[in-house]
Amino acid sequence: MRIDVLSLFPDMFSGPLHDSIVGKALDRDQLQIEVTDFRQYSTNKHGNVDDYPFGGGAGMLLQAQPIFDAFEATQRQAQEQGIESGRVILMDPAGRQFDQSVAENFAHERHLTFICGHYEGYDERIRSLVTDEISMGDYVLTGGELPAMVMIDAVTRLLPGVLGNAASAPGDSFSNGLLEYPQYTRPAEYRGMAVPDVLLSGNHQKIADWRERESLKRTFQRRPDLLETAALTTAQKRLLNDIKLELEEQENNA
Amino acid sequence: MRIDVLSLFPDMFSGPLHDSIVGKALDRDQLQIEVTDFRQYSTNKHGNVDDYPFGGGAGMLLQAQPIFDAFEATQRQAQEQGIESGRVILMDPAGRQFDQSVAENFAHERHLTFICGHYEGYDERIRSLVTDEISMGDYVLTGGELPAMVMIDAVTRLLPGVLGNAASAPGDSFSNGLLEYPQYTRPAEYRGMAVPDVLLSGNHQKIADWRERESLKRTFQRRPDLLETAALTTAQKRLLNDIKLELEEQENNA
Repeated sequence: MRIDVLSLFPDMFSGPLHDSIVGKALDRDQLQIEVTDFRQYSTNKHGNVDDYPFGGGAGMLLQAQPIFDAFEATQRQAQEQGIESGRVILMDPAGRQFDQSVAENFAHERHLTFICGHYEGYDERIRSLVTDEISMGDYVLTGGELPAMVMIDAVTRLLPGVLGNAASAPGDSFSNGLLEYPQYTRPAEYRGMAVPDVLLSGNHQKIADWRERESLKRTFQRRPDLLETAALTTAQKRLLNDIKLELEEQENNA
Repeated sequence: MRIDVLSLFPDMFSGPLHDSIVGKALDRDQLQIEVTDFRQYSTNKHGNVDDYPFGGGAGMLLQAQPIFDAFEATQRQAQEQGIESGRVILMDPAGRQFDQSVAENFAHERHLTFICGHYEGYDERIRSLVTDEISMGDYVLTGGELPAMVMIDAVTRLLPGVLGNAASAPGDSFSNGLLEYPQYTRPAEYRGMAVPDVLLSGNHQKIADWRERESLKRTFQRRPDLLETAALTTAQKRLLNDIKLELEEQENNA
């Protein structure tokens, strides 16, 4: 996969993209990431990339020209590698909410381009380059760089072979639509907090049952919205009813 | 404000925290960020920080001990500066969804500590240190580092004086509960795309009216959920009704 990032702050990417799992994917040539400083494409003699908004108002807006020109240069570079223009992503609160299904969708592409905006805003015409407006949530950041890194991380870990052990994703929340069960490692007691006995029992069936129950219980207590879309088996539905009755009883006795 | 980050990948933070607005806040001593590698607190002779899950299963879990000890060390350092332990934040899909109100809430604190987990999971007992479990959305990342950076960015820009121009936040989505109106800067025509005439008219009242209308219209078309909680004036409610009628008419004529 080739990922292009257009940003005014290319140095922000050096740490996050070279450490951790993304760095490993880069080392193994499963991934190529090109971060382009679009200031280099400014035709303005001072290298400016922003200007005052038409109609007045505070703040400076990113201009269309440097981003259009940088975009075209990166797409040409990709084409020289035989990679067509793919999805072009802009972070925008009006966009589709980023979630695991968007990440899975992006992970099937050969080429992604992220355009990183700037907190004061950008020229509306930049949207004409974009195939996907994506929102990371209802909060304001100083730029699109961190959301781009978040998406790159979420997508990279889904590329085939990137997580060393294909089995190390099963506990993932969202892979089965439920929250994870509580997990414990050594020591069996730490600062007075003990690991539940069942996990030390060596009884695999009991452990599996406990984990399924705890996963359902936590999801019911903390993210009941996930139960509306999770594909529960009949046995899980029965278990969930038991859990609800048990919790009600506990509440009545409290 | 003092921010502590406990992470196995401290180098990931160097770029994002020193460039852009966060770096400016650090330079001006409005913010102090200490990133602590909790591997340094491992009491294991190999410096290991993870171990197999009790009860079996794939993947390795972060152990409680290195994180507890690193946590206590950072809180002691803060206390030596006269800063009490504040909020302790862990990224977890079971947690409260991060949004602008959470960012505003955190921006009033004197001390935040972020504990960055790892994609394979962590010992459940680590949660006993935590005051705030926060979810960034329903997707899976390789670690808590990028979400911590996102939250630090969202919080930092709210600290008094950090955004140079106090007036450069007004166009922000969410500051008034609506999406931003379209913005344009020079040139007035670019690749055949023209700036709306009204923005070139110099008529301030007309420009303000157009912006309000476009902001309401975009919110209605793309994020109608925001209208349920936005505090609209009577005039805005009337305008919104006009917009709805106009859009219906356009649809009927299409």
